[in-house]
This record gives sequence, structure tokens and C-alpha cells, in this order.
Amino acid sequence: MIVLLKKDTSPERLAGLTDWLRSKNIEIHKSVGSTETVLGLVGDTAKLDIDLISALDFVKDVKRIQEPYKAANRKFHPDDTVIAVGSAHIGGGDLTLIAGPCSVESEEQIVGIAKQVKASGATVLRGGAFKPRTSPYSFQGMRAEGIELLEIAKQETGLPIVTEIMDADQLPLFKNVDMIQVGARNMQNFELLKALGRQEKPVLLKRGFAATYEELLMSAEYIMSEGNENVVLCERGIRTFEQYTRNCLDLAAVPALKTLTHLPIIIDPSHATGRRELIEPLSYGAAAVGADGLIIEVHNDPEHALCDGPQSIKPETFDVIARRSTAIRAAMTV
Amino acid sequence: MIVLLKKDTSPERLAGLTDWLRSKNIEIHKSVGSTETVLGLVGDTAKLDIDLISALDFVKDVKRIQEPYKAANRKFHPDDTVIAVGSAHIGGGDLTLIAGPCSVESEEQIVGIAKQVKASGATVLRGGAFKPRTSPYSFQGMRAEGIELLEIAKQETGLPIVTEIMDADQLPLFKNVDMIQVGARNMQNFELLKALGRQEKPVLLKRGFAATYEELLMSAEYIMSEGNENVVLCERGIRTFEQYTRNCLDLAAVPALKTLTHLPIIIDPSHATGRRELIEPLSYGAAAVGADGLIIEVHNDPEHALCDGPQSIKPETFDVIARRSTAIRAAMTV
Amino acid sequence: MIVLLKKDTSPERLAGLTDWLRSKNIEIHKSVGSTETVLGLVGDTAKLDIDLISALDFVKDVKRIQEPYKAANRKFHPDDTVIAVGSAHIGGGDLTLIAGPCSVESEEQIVGIAKQVKASGATVLRGGAFKPRTSPYSFQGMRAEGIELLEIAKQETGLPIVTEIMDADQLPLFKNVDMIQVGARNMQNFELLKALGRQEKPVLLKRGFAATYEELLMSAEYIMSEGNENVVLCERGIRTFEQYTRNCLDLAAVPALKTLTHLPIIIDPSHATGRRELIEPLSYGAAAVGADGLIIEVHNDPEHALCDGPQSIKPETFDVIARRSTAIRAAMTV
Amino acid sequence: MIVLLKKDTSPERLAGLTDWLRSKNIEIHKSVGSTETVLGLVGDTAKLDIDLISALDFVKDVKRIQEPYKAANRKFHPDDTVIAVGSAHIGGGDLTLIAGPCSVESEEQIVGIAKQVKASGATVLRGGAFKPRTSPYSFQGMRAEGIELLEIAKQETGLPIVTEIMDADQLPLFKNVDMIQVGARNMQNFELLKALGRQEKPVLLKRGFAATYEELLMSAEYIMSEGNENVVLCERGIRTFEQYTRNCLDLAAVPALKTLTHLPIIIDPSHATGRRELIEPLSYGAAAVGADGLIIEVHNDPEHALCDGPQSIKPETFDVIARRSTAIRAAMTV
Repeated sequence: MIVLLKKDTSPERLAGLTDWLRSKNIEIHKSVGSTETVLGLVGDTAKLDIDLISALDFVKDVKRIQEPYKAANRKFHPDDTVIAVGSAHIGGGDLTLIAGPCSVESEEQIVGIAKQVKASGATVLRGGAFKPRTSPYSFQGMRAEGIELLEIAKQETGLPIVTEIMDADQLPLFKNVDMIQVGARNMQNFELLKALGRQEKPVLLKRGFAATYEELLMSAEYIMSEGNENVVLCERGIRTFEQYTRNCLDLAAVPALKTLTHLPIIIDPSHATGRRELIEPLSYGAAAVGADGLIIEVHNDPEHALCDGPQSIKPETFDVIARRSTAIRAAMTV
Repeated sequence: MIVLLKKDTSPERLAGLTDWLRSKNIEIHKSVGSTETVLGLVGDTAKLDIDLISALDFVKDVKRIQEPYKAANRKFHPDDTVIAVGSAHIGGGDLTLIAGPCSVESEEQIVGIAKQVKASGATVLRGGAFKPRTSPYSFQGMRAEGIELLEIAKQETGLPIVTEIMDADQLPLFKNVDMIQVGARNMQNFELLKALGRQEKPVLLKRGFAATYEELLMSAEYIMSEGNENVVLCERGIRTFEQYTRNCLDLAAVPALKTLTHLPIIIDPSHATGRRELIEPLSYGAAAVGADGLIIEVHNDPEHALCDGPQSIKPETFDVIARRSTAIRAAMTV
Repeated sequence: MIVLLKKDTSPERLAGLTDWLRSKNIEIHKSVGSTETVLGLVGDTAKLDIDLISALDFVKDVKRIQEPYKAANRKFHPDDTVIAVGSAHIGGGDLTLIAGPCSVESEEQIVGIAKQVKASGATVLRGGAFKPRTSPYSFQGMRAEGIELLEIAKQETGLPIVTEIMDADQLPLFKNVDMIQVGARNMQNFELLKALGRQEKPVLLKRGFAATYEELLMSAEYIMSEGNENVVLCERGIRTFEQYTRNCLDLAAVPALKTLTHLPIIIDPSHATGRRELIEPLSYGAAAVGADGLIIEVHNDPEHALCDGPQSIKPETFDVIARRSTAIRAAMTV
Repeated sequence: MIVLLKKDTSPERLAGLTDWLRSKNIEIHKSVGSTETVLGLVGDTAKLDIDLISALDFVKDVKRIQEPYKAANRKFHPDDTVIAVGSAHIGGGDLTLIAGPCSVESEEQIVGIAKQVKASGATVLRGGAFKPRTSPYSFQGMRAEGIELLEIAKQETGLPIVTEIMDADQLPLFKNVDMIQVGARNMQNFELLKALGRQEKPVLLKRGFAATYEELLMSAEYIMSEGNENVVLCERGIRTFEQYTRNCLDLAAVPALKTLTHLPIIIDPSHATGRRELIEPLSYGAAAVGADGLIIEVHNDPEHALCDGPQSIKPETFDVIARRSTAIRAAMTV
């Protein structure tokens, strides 16, 4: 951490700061220039509260050099983490395919789709039971009943299941769920993150649509610092000025996050743009940049899906995506 | 609502859509052009699920013309809503001053600051007990104990209190709180919004740092549609590409939202930029654009504040802000 | 185009508008609802000045339905445009590789790099002679001399050359250049675009870092409406809140633009992020989403490049990129 | 400047860097930590090319501490610069009112508006002759003829005039113009900036809609480094995700820029949002945050303005704005 001091800082005030830092086992290197003085702080600065230092009136600026996350930091865990999700796994160089409908609607629907996506190569089934919707007047999901239907599909197909939680109170309903999803809007719902850190199921943590990489990793850190290190990150598009697509899928997040963290990173091409015709090319892009998996909305009747129909594809299209994405991965070793 | 059809839509499929719309009491006006056909939908389109229509494969685009919010819509409630917060009120042309420390730290601190800000003209006391922090290693607030200290400050000064909730489970602790704050990161925590809609205390709803006006109003609608119409909106800065300030305070939000909704809108100049020297000018800007109130972090010892010190001002500065903001409001009637 | 009228619009004022529209051969379909009246305008609305209509005080809102661009619009030119650049071409399903140093520095440097990238499969040579730099104190390029060196490299290798223009006055220097590049910062330098529309060389038009797809296409339209239809679009990253990368490469722009326009679209992975380690994965992502080409900065000594060294790769890395990108394209037909 | 080295940097390579830095009169302070080594560079780092250092493969990160601009930097020019524009001036604590139509349309129009805005307190007349428009099919301004009409208005009223230039070739036409405007889209048209730096008229430099404060100041630096120090900065809205307004007016830019630079800063509330009803409140906001002036579009017949009618106000409204903005400035001294 670098602390830039104002020109006229008194020696007494500076000594107050340096004593406090040394009490926290931080080593200090001081550089005095003609127009400013710079302190270089060396040690475990990840746990220093940067705001406390910035607040001092003789401090002009503070810049972090070490990342503020530890458990998620690749620097301290050089090897890729591979996370088991029931019989499937995410990470370690493979491209895991997760697929299923936006919302669970009926037993027939979810079991039917599960069988189809399994046949195409999906190893995890997704399906929404609790649905965060911008409008209170939109369909909010089948809730508890939706989870029961997912469990039936799991029994019928053997596919492990992932579905979204919206409040820690709902946790008892997730007993047979294999991976718990935190949606983009809840990425900084810290009470929820802490609750998920105190249980053992893997967590699929979606990047908020305006969250930085560092904030995403700090949210993973909330879960990990409570004891649960099974976190899968997911990029699903960020909000920009461009309005033709709902969001801008940040595919650079995959290789960038891989340098920062050992956690696996998957891509959600379905929610990224809100345009069905872009799901296929973005899936290929995701496979090519090295994502650990894809999570794709597949519906056997997208035109009658109860939500997010515009971004669902048919099983036939998913089959093509699965085949070509796998071929792209193979092409990358030539 | 305007529905733009693809060129080659079959009459049967179109009839399917129009029958369904008519069953929802929507009137349809059809315009056939040489290159496209447009349907104009007239009626209560606010409750139509736009996604269901967009999902149809013969629909090229759907554009809303009516706003998707009703309870919060000024069109149906032309008069300004004035909300009582204990002995104070927000709305109706006045500039309500809300002030207090970022975090409650001790009885002495909170009571002392409460007395000072009251003397300068504040009519509501703020103070953080539950603190959402990006890092799990930062101070998370005094939680229940912080609320107790706020209650003491309320008894000592008579000022009503506002403080932030982070999870619906915490509601019982808010029994003596006069207004419940929902932070920017929880603006789309829909389970929390619904819980707050099922109780009666006024809610101070902060705009998410990447939320549109419409999304903010839809979140207000979540609260209002459950029965609680006492919602105060708060702009506190949006995230942009500019990094000199933490966020960009969108002062146009005040007059813009006032045309869209009857709810009061206040400004938080403290969290907006993360720079103490900008709080004073932005407070004046907020008063000048017509905000219904200001919520400002005031600390008697900002350099030792346990959080957000860089954005706290001293009581002396608050006193100047209170005096000049009031003078600006008077100047606007010349 | 849809025009939404205010509730109390007088018949006289409305007649004034409709008469004016009819005089421009626009057909009008009127839908009268209980709370608003909507006009559907049908005809060649691309050339209507939307601002003139919005300015009317009885107009509440105007929404375009037809795109405001014509020459660039795929609707009127369904087939992909393929653009010849000397002996190379861009478009039509192939992946054209354009490579070379950020800045031309010496004959030895540019000729050496040209030979290397040609050996790896590049068919066009790039190199900066006029360099737009944020700081007036940074190296501004070799200017005219740089173009002469590019011409030598062209003679030595047979590769056609592309380089950036910064002002129409520089056009005479581009006599032997095969494609003229307009940089992102000049995407809306309309005087320059018009000048390039009045000559015949192909133009490589980079998307501004905060330009929408529509604005990019309107800038192409500036060139095309003056007579030169040889425009190649280039996505090179957009500015967002994320600061880990310099910009966010919007790979969805490729398939999205391909639905809107018949012009070819290439990707610049080098300028997108400012991080060398991301160039390789983003090149693969670009190949996988269907880009018509890649433009990549290659330097034989990136550490001593006079500008943009952090984003240059070595010829060895380019060779790998060329091989794998081609394999990815093949994989997409399985 | 802070240079963060990778862990395994060899002493030889490090010596190469430090020798080069010392040759440029940069002093180096080295801090060796357990996980990284940091160099603190002290001296005139504004003229160091940060890219050259970042490009080194043993450098992990470089952070500037000194601003990269010098002529525009308040640190070296602590007093406010006051710029004479004909008989008017901008800076030094006053609120200069600049007003006039978006486009010059006729002698009658421009002279009439000039007289009206002068009567309300405007001291500079604005009017567009060269008009940058997104669409080539929109009205492009009266060009040379428009400037002649502005000159007539200047003679009739005594008001100095400001109008926009789009290409350095147009400079001869600006002989009688008092201040030359550079539009937001040309903020990084560096060839134009350099040409304006080589002449003496004051330049009104608008912030690009996606430009940082630092980039704006670097563009001012381009002009100033060529010899012309008469630069007035103008904030006119930045592009964000919010689409209700065309742009988001960043009023914090005024006090923020005033700490960074000695140049005056004015606000353009007309172009900021594209909504006429927001011009008045934003003008008051601008006056309250301390802007050195306002530049406002005033049209005697906004509904028939040839461009940007939606954002023009009538002279009567301008009169109210002038009166109240002045009163707000007075209120700020209570």
C-alpha cells in the first residue's frame, strides 16, 4: 500500500500514523521528494482498512498494491480449484455444461428438458424456482414447489441441480440442491453471503452487472472467510451505455480473473444480452477464451416460457452449441 | 406499448397474440407499412409481462410507452406525497436535513453529534448500525447495540432516527426506528423490499449505483404494492468510467424523478464522491435543483471515524451547509 | 417511427404535424387510447430529423423503429460486403489477419516485423505513423517518414498496408496506403469522415470507446453517403466502470453488427485491454464469435517499443494465435 | 510515480531501468517487501512516458502519483485564471452567462435573440454555424454564412461571440470570433487542438462525453503546450447507463476540477440531458456548485429550431434563470 502525504505534514502526526501501522506489523518505507512524501507499506495490508488511512487530513491519497482478498487470491493458492457439484465438477481445464429452463414450470417441462440437455452433454441441470424480477407484477417463480420439481428431475436423470436463492431464510429448502446460485442483484447482499459461507454446498456467485472484478472477489471472500471455499464465479454481462443488448458480456473477465484467483469461472451467455441470436456465438467465444463452463437457458417451448423467453434457446440449438464448443476447446491445443 | 412484427408474420400467429391481448382488456391498433407492421397496444399495459411478448419469434421489438409502475407514478397521483418521519416530514417543498455519523460508535459520540446537528437545523438523525462493507475484514457496524445507542440519542434530543437494514430478519430490532433505510446494494433485494412493504414504517430507498430511474421506481413499487406507500427515494451517486470520484452524483435525478413520481427525493452528497471537499458544493447543488432533503455524514472526529472517514464532515461545516442551503432555497423564489 | 402525443393536443396543432409529415411522403396511423394518442409513421423515416419532431411541445416522446442508416443497413443490402485491400480482402466468412507494430520506428523494424507476420499468415501490414496520444508529451509518431517506411515494407513483402490518418490535410501522404484507418477518438470527426467518403480507398473505422452500434453505423454512413462504400468496422473495446482492463472488449458487437449491417467487422484485441496476457485469449474469442479479421500489434522487441509496449506481443505469440484462430474457425463447422 | 516490480526481477534488469530513470533526473526510492518490491520515483514524472515503463516484462504495475499535466495544473499555478472574451471575462468568482441559439438560422433570428439574452444579463453570444450531427442526413449548419450572421449580431449588440470549429482548415473564418469552441466529439482531435494552441483566441473546450477529468486536462494541455493558455473548460454531461436523459450532467466536475486546475469551468445544461424541463433546475445546480459560467441554448421559437429544439428554452425562461442563478450565487456567501 502506498500512502501519499500532503506537503506540510507535521512530524508528530506522521509519527502517530507510523506507530499505529507498526503495531499492525506493517513495515514502512518512506520516500521524501521535493513536492511530496510517499510511504510504502509492506506486510499483510489486505486486512488494513483503507478508509481509516484515507480519512486522515494529512493524507492526500492511498493506493493499494496488494489485493484486498486473500482466500480467493491466486498468489497464495497457485493451483486451480476444482469444485465437485454432485457427480459433476467445475474447473481444472474442462468445459462443464450447465443447462435448463429459466423457470421451472411443471414436472413434465423440467424432466423433459433435463433429459434433452443431458443427451447433448450437460452434466448439471439449472432451473429457476425463486425468480428475482424487476417488476412486482411479473411471474416470481414457483418457489418451494419449483425446487421439488427440480429434485424429481434430478432423480429421473441423475443430473445434479443448481438453483437460485434470494434470502438466507430459504436455505432449508435447498437441502437436496447441489449448488446454490447467488444472482447478480444479490452479489453484495452480504448477510446472504455470510449465511452461505456457514454451510457447505458449493455457491455459484454471479457478478453484479456493475461490479468490478475486485468486488466480485471480495464477495467470494465473504463466503470463503466464513469457511466455505467452494465458490464458482460467473460472468453474465455488465451494464454499459450500449442499449442494443441488455448487457455487455465481458469475456475478458475469464482470463483476467484466472490470473487473480484460483476459483473457476463460468459464463452465462443467456442473460448477457437478452437476444436469443447472440447466445450461440457468445457460447463459442466463452469456450475460446477459456471459461470453465457455460450456463445456458434451454426451453423446449421458448415462446411460451413464463419468463425470459427471449433469451432461451431450443434443445436442438443447445446440441449444436455443445458439439461446437467442445470442438473449439480441442482446437486450442493445436 | 408498441409491438413491431417481423415482415412475414402469418395471420394465424398474429391472431393468437391479438386474442390473448384482448383477453387482458388490451385494445389493439394495427399499422401496416411496406417494410413492417406495428401494433399499438392501449390499456393497462403496466401489468403486461413484456418478456412474454418479446419471446414470440415473429416479434422484432417491443417498446413500452406507458411506465411499468403504477403506485409510484405521478400520472395517477399528481400531488406530491409528504412523508412523516416521527416529528419531521419529507416532501412538499421543504428541505429536510438528515445528519449523523456513518457508524454509531458510542453513546457519547452519537448523542454528541445528534445535539450538534440538531442545533444546526437537522430534524432527523442518521447513523449506521448494520454496515454493508465491500470487505469482510472491514468494520461491520455495532449492529443491535448500535440501534440501542441511536434510541438513546433519540430520547436525548427528540430527533427521529433513520438507520439501515440489511436483512428482513433484523426487522424486530427496528421497532423504535422512525425510518428504515435500504442501501444501494440492496435496492433489488426483492425479498427485503417485500418484507418492508408489509410493515408501516417509512422506507428510505437508495438508488443502486447502476440502477436506472425506472428500476428505482420499480423497487419502490415492490414496497408499495405490498401496502406500504411511505417511500422516500435517495440519489447517492452512480457508477461511471470516471475514477477521480467514487461515483457521479446525478443531480438531474431530482427534477427528472419529480416528473415521473409523486414520492419525495433526497440527496446523499456524502457517499456520492468519497471526497470530503465535494460535500459542501454538492449540498448546495442539491438544494438548488430542488431536492426534498439532504442526508449528510457528520462526525465530530472524522479522522478517527471507524468507517468512511474520508467522506465525513465536521459539525462546523454542517452548520455552514445548513445555513447556505436554506438561503439557496429562498433565492430560488426571486 | 412512433410519436407519442400529450393528452390535450389540439386538433389544429396535430394537423400541422400530419400535413408536414405527409408532404415528406410519410404515411400516418393514429391510435387513440384513453390516456394517450400514438402516431405510427410509415415510410422513409431514416431521413426525418427526429429532433424537429421531439421539439414540438405537444409531443411527449418519439421512438425510432426503422434504423436511421440506409447505405450501411443490411435490410437493404442482404449480402455480406467483401472489401479488397490490395491483394487481401476482408469479409465473406474468412478471418483476415492484420498485424504489425503500434508505431513504425525504423526500416529495419518494420520490414523485419512485416516478414515475420507474413510468414505466420498475416495478409495486411499495420503500423502507426501518426499517433494520437493522450499526452502532448508522449511520442507522436514518425508521421510522413513513418508512411515512407511502411511503403518500403510493402515493397519488400508484398503486404498491403493500413495506417491511421488524423486530419484530412494528411490525405496526400496516403497515396500508397491500401486502407486508411480512422481511430476511435476520431470516429465522430465528421469533417474527416466526409473527406474520406470523397476518395476511394477502403476505410478502417474504429468504434469510439463510448459509441453505440448505431453511432458507429451512422459514422460509416457519413463516409458511404459521400460515395465511398468500402468501410470496414472495428471493435476495440468500450469504456466501462471496470478499471482492471483499459477497456472492455465487446465481442457481442460482432454478431450483433452482422445482423444490422452488411459491412465486415474485425476485432482489435491489442488496444482493448492494455494487458498483453489477454491478447491471446481474446483473439480466440474473436475468431469464435465470427469476426472477419483480427488487427494485432506485434513487435519484435515489445519492451523497447516507443508506444503501447504493454499491449504488443512477440512474433512467436502471433504465430500461435494465427494457427489456433484458424483451427477455431474450422471447429465451428463441426 | 510508483513502479511495482515482479518478485523475481533480476538485479541487471532493474539496474537498466534505474540508470535510464536517473538519466532523466528522476530520483528513486526502493522498498523491498517479502512479496514485492516497490520503486518510488521522485522528480518531474509528468513527462515520463508511463507506457514505456509498463511495457517492461518485470514490471507488474505502474501508478502515477503526480498528475501528467503541468500547464493546466493548479499545483504550479495556484491562482484562478481569468480569461477575457472580448468585453466579457470568464473566471475569478463571477457567473458569466453565455446564451444564444443552437444554430444560427437567419439575421433576424440571431440578432433578435442576441438582444433578448443581452437584456437578461448574458455577456457572450453563442450560436452554431458548423454543426456536428450524428446523422449525415441532419442539418449541418449554415457554416461560413452562419459566422457572418454572428458577426452582424456582434456589431448590433456589442456582445462578443463564441462558435464551434470542426476542422483547423476553418480557422480563417473565425477571424472575428471572440472564443472558439471545440465540441465534445472533438475533445481528442489532437491535430485540431494543436492548431488552436498555435493561435491566440480563447478556446472553449468541451469535455468529451466519456472523457475523464484527466483526459480533459490533457486536452487542455495540448492547447497550452503550443503556447495558448486561454482555455475555458466546459462540462456538458457524460454518458452512462441511464437512458431517460441523453447524458448525466456531472456537476461535481466543477469543484473537482477547481482543485486540479486553475482554468475556469463552465456548465452547459442544454446539451446535458436533451430535456427542456431540466435546463432550469440544472442551471441553478451549476450556479450553486460554483461554476464560472453557464452556456445555454435560447431560441425565440424552439419548436421550429432547425436542430436541438427539444433542448432550447425561450428568452422568458432564460430571464428567470439569469435572475435566480445570480440570487443563488449571492446566497452562497451568507
